[in-house]
Amino acid sequence: MTKKRVAIIGAGPSGLAQLRAFQSAAEKGAEIPELVCFEKQEEWGGLWNYTWRTGLDVNGEPVHGSMYRYLWSNGPKEGLEFADYSFEEHFGKQIASYPPRAVLFDYIEGRVKKAGVRDLIRFNTVVRWVSYDNDSGMFTVTVHDHEKDYVYSEDFDHVIVASGHFSTPNVPYYEGFETFNGRILHAHDFRDAREFAGKDILVMGSSYSAEDIGSQCWKYGAKSITSCYRSAPMGFDWPDNWEEKPALVKLEGNVAHFKDGTSKKIDAIILCTGYKHHFNFLPDDLRLKTANRLATTDLYKGVAWIYNPKLFYLGMQDQWFTFNMFDAQAWWVRDAIMGRIEIPADKEVMLADVKERQEREEASDDAKYAIHYQADYIKELVAETDYPDFDLDGASAAFVQWKYHKMEDIMGFRNNSYKSVITGTMAPVHHTPWKDALDDSMATYLKT
Amino acid sequence: MTKKRVAIIGAGPSGLAQLRAFQSAAEKGAEIPELVCFEKQEEWGGLWNYTWRTGLDVNGEPVHGSMYRYLWSNGPKEGLEFADYSFEEHFGKQIASYPPRAVLFDYIEGRVKKAGVRDLIRFNTVVRWVSYDNDSGMFTVTVHDHEKDYVYSEDFDHVIVASGHFSTPNVPYYEGFETFNGRILHAHDFRDAREFAGKDILVMGSSYSAEDIGSQCWKYGAKSITSCYRSAPMGFDWPDNWEEKPALVKLEGNVAHFKDGTSKKIDAIILCTGYKHHFNFLPDDLRLKTANRLATTDLYKGVAWIYNPKLFYLGMQDQWFTFNMFDAQAWWVRDAIMGRIEIPADKEVMLADVKERQEREEASDDAKYAIHYQADYIKELVAETDYPDFDLDGASAAFVQWKYHKMEDIMGFRNNSYKSVITGTMAPVHHTPWKDALDDSMATYLKT
Repeated sequence: MTKKRVAIIGAGPSGLAQLRAFQSAAEKGAEIPELVCFEKQEEWGGLWNYTWRTGLDVNGEPVHGSMYRYLWSNGPKEGLEFADYSFEEHFGKQIASYPPRAVLFDYIEGRVKKAGVRDLIRFNTVVRWVSYDNDSGMFTVTVHDHEKDYVYSEDFDHVIVASGHFSTPNVPYYEGFETFNGRILHAHDFRDAREFAGKDILVMGSSYSAEDIGSQCWKYGAKSITSCYRSAPMGFDWPDNWEEKPALVKLEGNVAHFKDGTSKKIDAIILCTGYKHHFNFLPDDLRLKTANRLATTDLYKGVAWIYNPKLFYLGMQDQWFTFNMFDAQAWWVRDAIMGRIEIPADKEVMLADVKERQEREEASDDAKYAIHYQADYIKELVAETDYPDFDLDGASAAFVQWKYHKMEDIMGFRNNSYKSVITGTMAPVHHTPWKDALDDSMATYLKT
Repeated sequence: MTKKRVAIIGAGPSGLAQLRAFQSAAEKGAEIPELVCFEKQEEWGGLWNYTWRTGLDVNGEPVHGSMYRYLWSNGPKEGLEFADYSFEEHFGKQIASYPPRAVLFDYIEGRVKKAGVRDLIRFNTVVRWVSYDNDSGMFTVTVHDHEKDYVYSEDFDHVIVASGHFSTPNVPYYEGFETFNGRILHAHDFRDAREFAGKDILVMGSSYSAEDIGSQCWKYGAKSITSCYRSAPMGFDWPDNWEEKPALVKLEGNVAHFKDGTSKKIDAIILCTGYKHHFNFLPDDLRLKTANRLATTDLYKGVAWIYNPKLFYLGMQDQWFTFNMFDAQAWWVRDAIMGRIEIPADKEVMLADVKERQEREEASDDAKYAIHYQADYIKELVAETDYPDFDLDGASAAFVQWKYHKMEDIMGFRNNSYKSVITGTMAPVHHTPWKDALDDSMATYLKT
């Protein structure tokens, strides 16, 4: 019998977790399938691979990256630490709790370098189309290799979609956008806060992007920040030059008019209006359509595509937990593919699984409830595989503390430190308060 | 016998010319094939359909539009007038020679509204993949209808690619781009020159985009323009605050260093570095790979795909002539599909056609030669169809005059007027010099 072939789409945190999951099984002596990981970018790391580019990339493909210069983790690293590769193992010491992007990239990369999986990745290769053939029971994956400018197809027993859902911006239109005399950009295209120094900025939205991009602009010298919300203000104790307003109604020239009748002259508009699950390589019978929520539609155990469970999706949930949740999913998917876990043959059973998760999610709007909900999901998956068990209640507690620290001081919460649930070590307090730390390089961050 | 089915990809100037070509035959009593035009945007007009959006559009697809506010035609309208629909017919009078975008959009739209072809277009529908089946002799076109979020496939006897080649930017990297503290954008993402008022701008490139975007920034109040070239300066008589420099070597912070050893502190970088022929919906056996030149590779008569001449491409050439060239091509393609023109069965004959065109193109670097070369190409096609004959030598003469007027006064060339080769009428001199005409609306332009 020939080996099963598995296609992994994307070499970001999810796709890399999948490669590591299989490699970990091989390390323990298991026979693993043949793996091919297709990565659109020229480097691994997904969103964590910073690019100065916006719009279309060097190959004419939509830029994957949504991260910006000076980005620091917006949640404590103690909530995302790999159970099989601690920060201390990677850096040789414990480090402070809110690392800048470059530090986290290094950490993600460290684990997969150690695992030796880079050769399984075909870089600069974008997936154009995936189809499933009922007769052969195989997927055909058609890709464009931009290095050779060559399109080819290969057949696979399984496809794992790990292409993320924070790369395709949701960009609403408001009256007057077409005649505004300044830059209008989505958070996806935000790169350097210094571009907005001295300016009056309008940040639209009230979720993580709005909060963090507004804070970046504030930190790097914007004249004022005006943020606006549709349903509820973020409600933090903002600096004096930051004002929260209700929804934008329209622009007249460079004046923004808000729902409360107030207005403000602005120089640039940053749309922090979220992202879409967008899969331009999938036909309807394989394509996930879901809101950004904790319990997605149509994925059994949050990963297996109910209508064809040879197809899997990783990381498609709204996220409190990130890397460690991707790990739990990747280990589970690995075991499903390797026959260690059985996926129900009855579609109704799988649909009931989704229904139960969604109802449970909808039972409360409370953030603490949501954190524990997602922790429970991870616990559930971890219990079914050999992924190292870890203290998810401890990680949840770090998130709850983090929420509290943000309410206490939105420009200072990153000065706190938390205890690792993997090694038990307390993180050091960082040497410089976040608001004064203008240099986000790894060397500076790791200085003690 | 059932009707042939023809897919037209794109409803910009080329695709619309194709619809008008077929409708014109039908008007004269011919039986025409069934036509389906797939358009990614929600409106027709291609590049002429202005959008404030950059990067990805409302459907998560790459934004097609590369035009910006205040764009006026950079060549005289007398070089692009439709032979079957004059400016005088559309506007009820002769108008000045360098219309702003909105005026040209209105003109393009006028012809196809009159032709009544809008119902043939499926808007918000992006082509995902095209394949050809040797056994059936048919193309399968797979599309994503974003209105219904629905993917489907249909079979066609012919496919006409009219998706343009000024939407996928060529974006080079230079040392220091990743640490520059300002905006770096490609011309494709340039929207409003007022964003750059008071700033020191670096414009990279020496072709039309560099010239026109630099001029826009100058007109709308940039502090200074620095443009840089790889091979030769544009060499116009620039205003005092515009300097041409040789190639960029690198950035250090916000200081640009040039090949001649000089440097300049800059606030923003606009990459006018051209576009790529990019077809993310075509496999290798159908996909044109060509430089941006007058005689493309692999297209017989500049339109028929040599390796499968049931497939056609429109407007893939570098362009002196635009709308009228697309017309000549569209009428020719129509007649080839309708069996009025025979495409050689011998591939060698077609290859020889391309070779002859390329050698003739390469015989001179002179602009005047190139203008006449492309005029001759249009003449050749027009002679083989019933497209109305028109005075291409006259149109060429307008282009030659235009080149002269630009050398004379780069900020004033648009104040000139030329004679229509369709109606013989002289265009009026515009009421306001271009540099003082800050309002680019149609109403203002058409005032007399």
